[in-house]
Amino acid sequence: MEHPFDTACALERAGDGRFSGNAPEAYWNMAGPFGGTTAAVLLRAALFEQPDGVEPVALTVNYCAALARGAFTIDARATRSGKSVRHVDVQMQQDRGIVATASVVLALRRDTWSHQVATMPEVPSPDAVAPMPTDGRLPWLQRYEFRFVRGAWQPQAQTYATLHSAHSTLWVADRPPRALDYLSLAALCDVFFVRAFHVRGTLVPAGTVTMTVHFHASAAELAAQGPLPVLGTVDAHTFTRNFGDQIAQIWSSRGRLLATTTQMTWFKE
Amino acid sequence: MEHPFDTACALERAGDGRFSGNAPEAYWNMAGPFGGTTAAVLLRAALFEQPDGVEPVALTVNYCAALARGAFTIDARATRSGKSVRHVDVQMQQDRGIVATASVVLALRRDTWSHQVATMPEVPSPDAVAPMPTDGRLPWLQRYEFRFVRGAWQPQAQTYATLHSAHSTLWVADRPPRALDYLSLAALCDVFFVRAFHVRGTLVPAGTVTMTVHFHASAAELAAQGPLPVLGTVDAHTFTRNFGDQIAQIWSSRGRLLATTTQMTWFKE
Repeated sequence: MEHPFDTACALERAGDGRFSGNAPEAYWNMAGPFGGTTAAVLLRAALFEQPDGVEPVALTVNYCAALARGAFTIDARATRSGKSVRHVDVQMQQDRGIVATASVVLALRRDTWSHQVATMPEVPSPDAVAPMPTDGRLPWLQRYEFRFVRGAWQPQAQTYATLHSAHSTLWVADRPPRALDYLSLAALCDVFFVRAFHVRGTLVPAGTVTMTVHFHASAAELAAQGPLPVLGTVDAHTFTRNFGDQIAQIWSSRGRLLATTTQMTWFKE
Repeated sequence: MEHPFDTACALERAGDGRFSGNAPEAYWNMAGPFGGTTAAVLLRAALFEQPDGVEPVALTVNYCAALARGAFTIDARATRSGKSVRHVDVQMQQDRGIVATASVVLALRRDTWSHQVATMPEVPSPDAVAPMPTDGRLPWLQRYEFRFVRGAWQPQAQTYATLHSAHSTLWVADRPPRALDYLSLAALCDVFFVRAFHVRGTLVPAGTVTMTVHFHASAAELAAQGPLPVLGTVDAHTFTRNFGDQIAQIWSSRGRLLATTTQMTWFKE
């Protein structure tokens, strides 16, 4: 049986750079599907028919409107193709207009000197951390296994009198397990719960407006990770006037930085 | 006399969402102008004819090719306009094709609870830090006053045997002084020297491929900063296979976080 993530990323080619697909029921969130699968399917359209060896370097997704149930179309268009770097713009449409856009930087990357400045925090192994119960919760939550090392979300009846830290550290994996690739890595960048919930303790209407992902690992390095949980570290700089930011890192089991990601999230009140 | 930054951002309206402008000689870098002015003029096109009170929330600029001397055209197109959030896609063209694209998130932001999690480091005041000499150097360097508190770039004859930190802290201001606004703030997000130079000690062919800016301050807060230097803090997570990242924060004199920015920079070898 096809993994629900692959179903979510399934595209039918409908012409040159034109595709059709379906909003994934298996990843449904409150209003529309989880933003991570939207990011992944936009990235998939950009990678379609690229020569072997071309890998994603950066992805910015702008979430323009909630995706409705049912069909969508995607248009992908190369804006510039250089010797090693390619730029692709992608748009997702439904009946009522554009629902998401993305700009994607792709490259034929070669070996160079390397220097990982950031280091993964010391954490217990995934087996030593209990998974968050997700049975009966929103469909997209059931598609991941969240093992919070620090900063689990503890819903409160009342807003905290003193606002809390925005930091969380967690092991996270697709459920059922699935070997890591660029598409699932892009989606994993959006699994962190809205930081405004963490700092306030209560739910407020909120949604990601824009997410940027920077990719730091080769296809071979992602394949080496296989289906094992990756470590996510996430924090925020500031919340003000309807918007809060988020910055996160995704690490391999061995402490290799796979991706960094930032977003701006809208919140009400 | 017009400030060179305003000359760099000057646009002539050539139709609905269509503009023309000129690559700014006063901000010339090695191959093409400083990326900060390109970001600013793309943002200006997106802000053109927006209703009063609409402010930028996020900007992603993709640098597709070096901008040549002379004229360029810009096309700005609203992809979706909601009640409070608007999305605009922008493209800059020259004779040989698209040279840069941008996606811009704009919003009518309202007062909400706020929570600045990040704190500005303790630093000496700008007056207590000597400016970096820029006379006779690249034109764009002469358009800014750089006062390095930590991590000044010290060009080396040989690559460091042990790679260095990617961190810098500096006061930076337009030269001549100019009151801060969203356009100059966007440009300031790109003033940090390529982090690969800092960690290696030597110059290598390099250039920003994509930059994302998140705006955290109101127009009134920027106006309150006036022409005073802002503090920039910058670092990187990793360098590998032709690309390094960058993350930076821009702070007001009073420690208010004005913007956060990330980029991916290409380097050779």
